[in-house]
Amino acid sequence: MMRILDPQDCAINTATLGFQAPIGDVIEAIARFGFAGIAPWRREMEGQNLKAVAKHIRDSGLRVTGYCRSTYIPANGRAEFEGNIADNKRALNEATELGAESFVMVVGTLRDLTSARTQVRDGVAMLLEHAKSLNVKLALEPLHPVYAADRSCITLAEEALDICDAVEGEVSEPQLGIFVDAYHLWWSVNLSRDILRAGKAKRIFGFHVSDWLNPTTDILNDRGMMGDGVIDLKSIRSMVEAAGYQGLIETEIFSINNWWKKPMDETLKVIAERIKTSV
Amino acid sequence: MMRILDPQDCAINTATLGFQAPIGDVIEAIARFGFAGIAPWRREMEGQNLKAVAKHIRDSGLRVTGYCRSTYIPANGRAEFEGNIADNKRALNEATELGAESFVMVVGTLRDLTSARTQVRDGVAMLLEHAKSLNVKLALEPLHPVYAADRSCITLAEEALDICDAVEGEVSEPQLGIFVDAYHLWWSVNLSRDILRAGKAKRIFGFHVSDWLNPTTDILNDRGMMGDGVIDLKSIRSMVEAAGYQGLIETEIFSINNWWKKPMDETLKVIAERIKTSV
Repeated sequence: MMRILDPQDCAINTATLGFQAPIGDVIEAIARFGFAGIAPWRREMEGQNLKAVAKHIRDSGLRVTGYCRSTYIPANGRAEFEGNIADNKRALNEATELGAESFVMVVGTLRDLTSARTQVRDGVAMLLEHAKSLNVKLALEPLHPVYAADRSCITLAEEALDICDAVEGEVSEPQLGIFVDAYHLWWSVNLSRDILRAGKAKRIFGFHVSDWLNPTTDILNDRGMMGDGVIDLKSIRSMVEAAGYQGLIETEIFSINNWWKKPMDETLKVIAERIKTSV
Repeated sequence: MMRILDPQDCAINTATLGFQAPIGDVIEAIARFGFAGIAPWRREMEGQNLKAVAKHIRDSGLRVTGYCRSTYIPANGRAEFEGNIADNKRALNEATELGAESFVMVVGTLRDLTSARTQVRDGVAMLLEHAKSLNVKLALEPLHPVYAADRSCITLAEEALDICDAVEGEVSEPQLGIFVDAYHLWWSVNLSRDILRAGKAKRIFGFHVSDWLNPTTDILNDRGMMGDGVIDLKSIRSMVEAAGYQGLIETEIFSINNWWKKPMDETLKVIAERIKTSV
């Protein structure tokens, strides 16, 4: 029998709320429903004083679980690659100012997957040095293979963990790890094995939940509320907890035709219910 | 430098032509363009005399690479499961009458993936006995993980090969193997490793080509003509050939809004060109 979750066990990724309101209103809504953390996006920081935003989040009693997200790393030429790294370094500086526990990395891809994977490994190594100097964690997020053409050459958790091992090696307090996103990883026969490996290496930096709707009508933006789809989220949560993860459980739902159209408070109310019944 | 393909190296899966015409017309069109094989679907055999169809195919100089496809195996109760097995046995009889080299299996799925996988393994073992008595091969087709909710709990080539090993064991002339479909497998970092393993075990029973369009607008029926998408088909063909595969290369394109709307002869003409330039 698993413990029933409470909003205090959970964080909200602001993408879930459809970027309808200024970040200040979003922070207050999330805190009002009793959640313990927030994961904001770079687009919400444009024109903002980051130290003021960080203070607002802290004063609202929230942790910053992650800062979303990286600029894609692989490029078709060296200059563009260097530009991508520089851009990610600036974002890492912002993550530090916000007090984010992790910088969330969606790594990008190319038609030439071999080149993309090499560039990602090189780029992650360069960024890890910068992240260490700032004391912020780098979290690679393997995406569902449906995004291999346009968003991420890294699709399997084992692939992300292999990069962690190759770039950082075995260390007692890793600064390079992964986000386990149920939507991206639920289908794999190796899921339990990979989560256990990640946990043993202390490399689970976050845990995203949402649901896979059947049918799914839009590859990017038709993700479901927990309980509305086919993913056995309780089972995946038990794997993540058995692997030693003790961080917040973060809801991230991209839903252009449903949840993004609802008032923030309605979405937050449903999440507060569903984490109890369906996660 | 790879050898340039000729229609005589290739087969056409009839789904590519959108089921617009009776099977007799489809057979003649495929033969007229010089292709060496055909893979028909069960829906095309309704109301047909299978021995006559088989003779028509043979007399046209075509091989039957595969017969498509299995009834999904996993069920929510024993009676339904037994019914699915019985239905697949009837289809195996048809495959034999047609002289098909393989019976192509899309295995199905359930919300409870663990139960689905157990049922698939049990069902494949039951069907393998029947297939052996008929001397037709069983080909498991791992599908892209985007279909894990509705079509196949088997998504990785390694998973399909593990089932082959568990059910049939190591044998010199396997009757249980896999179809390598570029559309379903192209994204995996383990692709080359898995294809080599399949080839060493003589378990590559077929090779499907099409292309992944970017963007993809329909998860099931927006597959691309070879050369129109992002898959490095030449690279995957070289892996399959290096693994010892010597069978025909089969085009299978589900394309409800494009190729299925075109006259058969136009689609076949373009395939005859693209196998030279893009595979």
